[in-house]
Amino acid sequence: MIDYQAPLRDMQFILDELAGLKQIGQLPGCEDASPDLVGAVLEEAGKFAAGVLTPLNQAGDRQGCRLEGERVITPDGWQAAYDQFRDASWIGLSLPPEHGGQGLPKLVSTPVWEMWFSTNMAFAMLPQLNVGQTEALMIAASEAQKATWLEKIVSGEWAATMNLTEPQAGSDLAATRMRAEPTDDGAYRLFGQKIFISYGEHELTPNILHLVLARLPDAPPGVKGLSLFLAPKYLLDAQGEPGEKNDIRCIAIEHKMGIHGSPTCTLSYGDQGGALGYLVGEPHQGLATMFVMMNDARFNVGVQGVALGERAYQAALAYARERVQGRDIVSGATGRPILVHPDVKRMLVSMRARLMAMRGLLYTAAGWFDIARHHPDAEVADKHRRYVDLLMPVAKGWCTEVGNDLCDEAIQVFGGMGFVEETGVAQLFRDARIITIYEGTTGIQANDLLGRKILREEGATLRELIGDIRETAAQLDGHERLGDLAEALRDQAALLEETTDWLLAHQADTADLYAGAVPLLHLLGIACGAWQLARLALAADTRREAGDGDADYLAGLAELARFYMATQAPQARAHAQTLRQAGAVLTRFPDASL
Amino acid sequence: MIDYQAPLRDMQFILDELAGLKQIGQLPGCEDASPDLVGAVLEEAGKFAAGVLTPLNQAGDRQGCRLEGERVITPDGWQAAYDQFRDASWIGLSLPPEHGGQGLPKLVSTPVWEMWFSTNMAFAMLPQLNVGQTEALMIAASEAQKATWLEKIVSGEWAATMNLTEPQAGSDLAATRMRAEPTDDGAYRLFGQKIFISYGEHELTPNILHLVLARLPDAPPGVKGLSLFLAPKYLLDAQGEPGEKNDIRCIAIEHKMGIHGSPTCTLSYGDQGGALGYLVGEPHQGLATMFVMMNDARFNVGVQGVALGERAYQAALAYARERVQGRDIVSGATGRPILVHPDVKRMLVSMRARLMAMRGLLYTAAGWFDIARHHPDAEVADKHRRYVDLLMPVAKGWCTEVGNDLCDEAIQVFGGMGFVEETGVAQLFRDARIITIYEGTTGIQANDLLGRKILREEGATLRELIGDIRETAAQLDGHERLGDLAEALRDQAALLEETTDWLLAHQADTADLYAGAVPLLHLLGIACGAWQLARLALAADTRREAGDGDADYLAGLAELARFYMATQAPQARAHAQTLRQAGAVLTRFPDASL
Repeated sequence: MIDYQAPLRDMQFILDELAGLKQIGQLPGCEDASPDLVGAVLEEAGKFAAGVLTPLNQAGDRQGCRLEGERVITPDGWQAAYDQFRDASWIGLSLPPEHGGQGLPKLVSTPVWEMWFSTNMAFAMLPQLNVGQTEALMIAASEAQKATWLEKIVSGEWAATMNLTEPQAGSDLAATRMRAEPTDDGAYRLFGQKIFISYGEHELTPNILHLVLARLPDAPPGVKGLSLFLAPKYLLDAQGEPGEKNDIRCIAIEHKMGIHGSPTCTLSYGDQGGALGYLVGEPHQGLATMFVMMNDARFNVGVQGVALGERAYQAALAYARERVQGRDIVSGATGRPILVHPDVKRMLVSMRARLMAMRGLLYTAAGWFDIARHHPDAEVADKHRRYVDLLMPVAKGWCTEVGNDLCDEAIQVFGGMGFVEETGVAQLFRDARIITIYEGTTGIQANDLLGRKILREEGATLRELIGDIRETAAQLDGHERLGDLAEALRDQAALLEETTDWLLAHQADTADLYAGAVPLLHLLGIACGAWQLARLALAADTRREAGDGDADYLAGLAELARFYMATQAPQARAHAQTLRQAGAVLTRFPDASL
Repeated sequence: MIDYQAPLRDMQFILDELAGLKQIGQLPGCEDASPDLVGAVLEEAGKFAAGVLTPLNQAGDRQGCRLEGERVITPDGWQAAYDQFRDASWIGLSLPPEHGGQGLPKLVSTPVWEMWFSTNMAFAMLPQLNVGQTEALMIAASEAQKATWLEKIVSGEWAATMNLTEPQAGSDLAATRMRAEPTDDGAYRLFGQKIFISYGEHELTPNILHLVLARLPDAPPGVKGLSLFLAPKYLLDAQGEPGEKNDIRCIAIEHKMGIHGSPTCTLSYGDQGGALGYLVGEPHQGLATMFVMMNDARFNVGVQGVALGERAYQAALAYARERVQGRDIVSGATGRPILVHPDVKRMLVSMRARLMAMRGLLYTAAGWFDIARHHPDAEVADKHRRYVDLLMPVAKGWCTEVGNDLCDEAIQVFGGMGFVEETGVAQLFRDARIITIYEGTTGIQANDLLGRKILREEGATLRELIGDIRETAAQLDGHERLGDLAEALRDQAALLEETTDWLLAHQADTADLYAGAVPLLHLLGIACGAWQLARLALAADTRREAGDGDADYLAGLAELARFYMATQAPQARAHAQTLRQAGAVLTRFPDASL
């Protein structure tokens, strides 16, 4: 089993210095987020994660889930952990107080979710669905629906799911076929099959509320004909309690490479006359609402990237400090831990630098989300909403790619011991492999970034962001101790700007352009990471000069930024070049030559 | 199950045009390698791989191996497949005719082993050990030992292993503790534990011959005190047949992330008085001989990189041609396979380009190996031996890293279907994760490259190689159809040269330098790949102009080279920059800040 210690110091530093926790705690509706409360929440969450979720992670992986008839059996210990999780009110941390939540900002819940995902991602996927579903229902559900369902979902008394995928409709929701037929009393009967439904069936809660995309009889084709329905596992009786079983059956669960503790279900709707469902929002407008849940999920999957990476890093670092092997290449000494080997140290520093870059980006984006939602100045709110929109595909796409890389690198640090399952890093590597896929693959994120987030608005928000990066670079100019970072960061801004210009100048070459979408996503991810680490170095330096905090820790943050610039900035340039060069060759490449 | 079709056309093209099969077939001792024979061998091997090994691969992964008492049970079907494999004389393909082998060049056996690894790596690891052990025994065993053992090992009647690793001695063989005590009759008794022994125990053959590193009582410390021993599972009786069981016990097998069909054993020697072993070669000189076997294994692990990558590519391509999803971003058409999406096509072309680059490098290196061994001109032989030595860590380190990337990318093409085990790409991804680790991690390869292969000879061979790359670039200069590749290739040569100069100028900064060893390995790998693809493009163009071969196929090869230059050359530059910049930051980075 891999120990886990919540990286509270790193988390707190980023919350305070990069994401502006103090300012966000002053926004209307966020006043509960006092420094003391936030500190206490993080500490409690760290204890819960390390004490309750960590010990179950490996056992859950080994045991996995099984289907007995139509029943899905989750791993031993899942029920007790879920009961504790629910009773501690973790689910409602950032959810609306009017439905029983604590209403804390997303900025505060983000590090907490990072801890859940670090210690037991397969488990944490379950309550995370409640959060996403609540966000969606808050937007689109009727008051009656909210009154019926939300309190149970926010508390976690009942579980939630998100039902999008069908065999022929994976990334392509336009191909959704599930039918919804109106009944006489204003409800609907659902018919069809949904696949890849995380926690689509289990017995951890007395009811499960499915949020389902389906088509009404008069639906136009494509995504503009998708409506959203609530369909509970058990229909509610007159007292609002789970009663009769709805016509929804789990007919299979997937045999997956990772997240074995999370059942991935095939759900069959309507084999016995139709599953009762209730329309959420307007007919044919379901996709927009589902995207609220999806966007929440995407952000959280990005958090899974940093979370699994953190766990992998902690494991690799502990191993590198303990495992003795080889000879110090400088002193010739033997009996030293492998951390003395330059290549091992390179991997660990590189892991930590990218972790802090990702965390900086994700927490900052979470703060932007709160500003967008709560800031009284509409212009400020709007700017931050646009930033969130622009960077959502980066938060999801880039952080998951990097998270995979970190788990991979942790195995490399462990060597042969990483390939055996006992040490636990292999599980992280296997679990992580889903995160660049679910909730939209990296390719889908990259296309979203290029098309909807950049080209559609002619790069306006991206240029604003580039301006912000340049402002940070200006703060570094001539800085006594950090001046060397200025040029590196300005280079990143220049790369982004040249790339934006190039993209806009080549809009006509659609296929060429989209061949570069993934390199673009990496470029923007690396550049945003560089920006956040530069901000981190500045903040750490200010604190250090003020004698405020552990000087070694603070000095280490500036070195992390330097290391990141030395190793990641060249990658950003490579992505920018690839982006320009690859498309033309690719487009004319004959498919028959594959 | 993933279908496999041996890529005979690609293999044959590279054998003929890059690796010089014809010239090698004219070397003394290689005359049997006529074009007809080689073609027939490849075709037969392709049939065997697809027909016999492919169907067992997934079942072997699911079932795995188990330990019953001291018996190791391999998956169902392993025995029948091994019997067929042995009876078809595949093991001796490149082994000495005087011991029953066919004596074909390594160039011919390399694509054949690629096929075995593509279709069932866990299985193929077993006979591959026979090949490596034969190479080692040919160098160091006495005539009596050869007479006793070699025929059985070459035929595959008995199996072979390589026993290096101990719990405290993984990458660091200097820490080996196994003791060898002389007996009165000139043999030795071995005491100690070996771990991570592939096929250390099984019942597929009536005997197993272990090649074991151990220390004599008077051994100096470190690697200069290692001696090599043969220790059979069953001692031979007077008739030379397996008789009494030797004092060697399998006490555990590993629970691994992949290669489940290959038992990874912990062997305990000497619990009941000492395992009988026979000294091979001189006392304390064991490591050099073991390195013959190790180098053979390293090269073959590099081949595993291209092999798993090829299988993953075939699977991904088939899926991309069949799976319908989304809308063509150019025409807006629906109902088209996902190969129309630029990002999916990007992944596939990138996979194929890197496959051909790796294959070009590996087969060319195999040809160099044959020239080194058989060429009558000592100077020519020596040059090629030096090339093999220089590029062995690249063949192993770079091809395994790229092989992992290709398996990863194949999962990405499959999306969610790649994460479920049924489709088979997840297994390739899991299996592949060991290849950057065993027989020396990428870091170990990179240190070997930097220290022993470059610095120790002041970059002499590398400069010779750079000269050869420049010669290819000169052939491209002003070329009517391929002139655009000249500059890209010359850039690679320049990067290598600047890097060599820089490394030699900074030899004093040992730690800084070694922090860049892995980037150096990637740089040289990419550059060699670029060189091979440029040669491929030239050869294809010549053939096309001569009307010799399928024009579309030949044109596709030139485009592959272009795509590789567009996407991989920027990566090479990034590695070169990282190599120079990272060390200084890393060296001063305080360990406490990790």
